[in-house]
Amino acid sequence: MRVVMIGSGRLATQLALSLYEQRAQGISIVQVWSRTSENARLLADRVGAQAAALDDIVTDADVYLLSVKDDALPVLIPQLCKGRTEGVFLHTAGSVPMSVFQGFAAHYGVFYPMQTFSKERPVSFEHIPVFIEGSDEQALHCAETLAQTVSRSVYRLTSEERRYLHLAAVFACNFANHCYALSARILDEHGLPFDVMKPLIMETAEKVQTLSPLQAQTGPAVRYDETVIEAQKALLADNPRMCDIYDIMSRSIHEELKG
Amino acid sequence: MRVVMIGSGRLATQLALSLYEQRAQGISIVQVWSRTSENARLLADRVGAQAAALDDIVTDADVYLLSVKDDALPVLIPQLCKGRTEGVFLHTAGSVPMSVFQGFAAHYGVFYPMQTFSKERPVSFEHIPVFIEGSDEQALHCAETLAQTVSRSVYRLTSEERRYLHLAAVFACNFANHCYALSARILDEHGLPFDVMKPLIMETAEKVQTLSPLQAQTGPAVRYDETVIEAQKALLADNPRMCDIYDIMSRSIHEELKG
Repeated sequence: MRVVMIGSGRLATQLALSLYEQRAQGISIVQVWSRTSENARLLADRVGAQAAALDDIVTDADVYLLSVKDDALPVLIPQLCKGRTEGVFLHTAGSVPMSVFQGFAAHYGVFYPMQTFSKERPVSFEHIPVFIEGSDEQALHCAETLAQTVSRSVYRLTSEERRYLHLAAVFACNFANHCYALSARILDEHGLPFDVMKPLIMETAEKVQTLSPLQAQTGPAVRYDETVIEAQKALLADNPRMCDIYDIMSRSIHEELKG
Repeated sequence: MRVVMIGSGRLATQLALSLYEQRAQGISIVQVWSRTSENARLLADRVGAQAAALDDIVTDADVYLLSVKDDALPVLIPQLCKGRTEGVFLHTAGSVPMSVFQGFAAHYGVFYPMQTFSKERPVSFEHIPVFIEGSDEQALHCAETLAQTVSRSVYRLTSEERRYLHLAAVFACNFANHCYALSARILDEHGLPFDVMKPLIMETAEKVQTLSPLQAQTGPAVRYDETVIEAQKALLADNPRMCDIYDIMSRSIHEELKG
């Protein structure tokens, strides 16, 4: 299976490297395109591919894998699909429907690996769930083959379902991480090292691997312990934004547990 | 060191069991008291102690360890300390100052293990940081000895610092877990299993073991991608509480990263 990688960001890089590791399984990345040609060259070098300008992208690849910013897709797709009628076009965006390809490509779909990618941290794709969708059998088969090459958890999902999945991921990952960030800010402002919080963060995540988050919930908001809650809000008096977050989260915890 | 355990809740239970495991080090739990005598008996049986009524608590223990609800402390302390002038009184509450003992006990302090305890899940105290404080050398030494018996991470902390530490823990643990709960609600409402979210939750927690939470932050709020944010808020239109949380968290992520 000959793959053209469109993009060189965090996800594109990790994905290209994971596919390259599985090259014995008959996957080869033939070209890499990126808005910044230097980035394309750097990634291409790491995965045995050629960096290509948009006009030079081959017309006979099996898959064109688009891993670019969400709002770049509607701009890029018409240019990329033009004259390349045979291959399957897949994007990796959680919140963009498959229909973004409609009218431009004959075979298209989605390949959404749900994970948080940072440049500084390599990931093993093996345990990342990949959610796929295809406009027809050819596209679905192609997305599935590619996904099963890199991951053990592959799920078929409609665009509508994926919108909610992505929203749920924003809560479980992006917002949870922001809670860590606000915690780090409080510690830092009082001369305490963030290190002391790390075991608690790990245990909080590990608990919900076996308990439901509602069963796992602890803290003053569970019984809405007003004495503690008011005292803690008073500590945040000089930061109205954090005080608002404290307030809304505490009320919400109590509401969820009430049922 | 002869210990009387006051309380039989989640923390009291885990702590008593951990101390009992280290009984070869010369720690023995002699009595357990609980508001519910049946619970006292159950815990006492597990740690080779006697269940006791409040009036029957020995006067010659080395440590009285109070692990009860925050608002029970001011009620319990005068009754408990009366006539028991020799021992050290320690409480385990994150947000209650050491001074709650002032005027009632001669030697007192705090033994605060920072972790999230659920009945359903045993914990190993070894890696839980314990924050201690003492009114005098005897109390501090006693708290330190006890803490080092069960944990590898023991820190001295003032009551003032501990207030902020506890607040930081509410963000990193209780609020992060609530983000998981809201994620689980979204998935559940759309027929998706919470299982698919578990690898992402683990990776989000693991990332901040080596990166700072600000470095680790991902998601549409990082660059305040208004198209995605508005589309996601629209999915929450029938749940104003979750929509408010989405809004305030997204703005706060963006604010933190800007400055």
